[in-house]
Amino acid sequence: MQIDLKQPILQKNDELAAELRARFAEHHVFVLDLLASPGSGKTSTILATIDALRDEFNIAVIEGDIASNVDAEKIKAQGIAAVQINTGGACHLESAMIKRAVDALDLERLDLIIVENVGNLVCPTDFDLGENAKVMILSVPEGHDKPLKYPGVFQVAEAVVLNKVDTMSVFDFDREAFDASVRQLNPTAPIFPIAATKGEGVEEWAEWLAERIREIQ
Amino acid sequence: MQIDLKQPILQKNDELAAELRARFAEHHVFVLDLLASPGSGKTSTILATIDALRDEFNIAVIEGDIASNVDAEKIKAQGIAAVQINTGGACHLESAMIKRAVDALDLERLDLIIVENVGNLVCPTDFDLGENAKVMILSVPEGHDKPLKYPGVFQVAEAVVLNKVDTMSVFDFDREAFDASVRQLNPTAPIFPIAATKGEGVEEWAEWLAERIREIQ
Repeated sequence: MQIDLKQPILQKNDELAAELRARFAEHHVFVLDLLASPGSGKTSTILATIDALRDEFNIAVIEGDIASNVDAEKIKAQGIAAVQINTGGACHLESAMIKRAVDALDLERLDLIIVENVGNLVCPTDFDLGENAKVMILSVPEGHDKPLKYPGVFQVAEAVVLNKVDTMSVFDFDREAFDASVRQLNPTAPIFPIAATKGEGVEEWAEWLAERIREIQ
Repeated sequence: MQIDLKQPILQKNDELAAELRARFAEHHVFVLDLLASPGSGKTSTILATIDALRDEFNIAVIEGDIASNVDAEKIKAQGIAAVQINTGGACHLESAMIKRAVDALDLERLDLIIVENVGNLVCPTDFDLGENAKVMILSVPEGHDKPLKYPGVFQVAEAVVLNKVDTMSVFDFDREAFDASVRQLNPTAPIFPIAATKGEGVEEWAEWLAERIREIQ
């Protein structure tokens, strides 16, 4: 006999995610679930995105980490509401964690919630958080072969942010090979090359996101 | 009622890992389980380690990936036996996967098996594979704050390889802060700064590993 443990866990997660999605829609809040490896520049990308969008939209951030609250502190230092979730070992966020974080936010005054998932290219892929879009970040130092090795996350992403492009010459990163293998997995997701800490390329990425937010307002 | 799913899964894994450990000991084979994020340079580090140790030891590699066999092909191109495990979605290797891979190797003629785990700083931490040592790689572009965010892997590692140190000046990596936070989690693990693709620092790391292998021969 084989017991499938994954299906009941996912089913419970998805039911709560559907409730969250209805609640976000009712308040016209766009929710972005950001997936990436450790150290790919998720927090830097969020800070650059906030800079680009804060004049038009009211933004809050939900930070998911195994441990520590350093990311939430960086966001709060910019005058943006941030809720830290510590998963205490779990390798991904689940909708029940998001529900608790959202209960601490005033949805009525928000236009955008950015969820920074746990640094992991695998586990967060399967979990619906009630978001409007999952977007992934890959950083140049990770290498252009990552779509071959972690296909799932490239398949679920509605956009791919390629971060740290200012270090392209330092690493042996083949942009053409990268784009080709992303296209095989995901024919439609736009690829945004950026250098988050320097603000390079952020405008195009932020405008894509802004367009998505305006659609639901 | 709450059902703890993790314990029975781990218990079954650990029982098989104990059998594997006995089998490795009987054949005097040292098994290294290598943990790291995607793109931290696991395969490059393995290639550099093979270069440093192949005159003294007979080596084989077990490659763990969600998908693809590009890493095993790189190893085989160096004339080293390599078995590719595709987890098909699972975020870590388990002892049952290692058993199947080991059945394809001739333990009698081997001194060292290097297991390249799935790129993930979280999930592989909990799974005993029957190895003699877990070692982790962090790469400089990932940032010096990673011990705070992924403490578990730094706690289980018997050594920490800090890769891509040739890019230290490109990234804002604080070596002192990194060492201090590793020390808080793990007072004894040596930290080996290397640049795997350039061969820098590999000698010290390889000598530490060689010493461990000689102990069991």
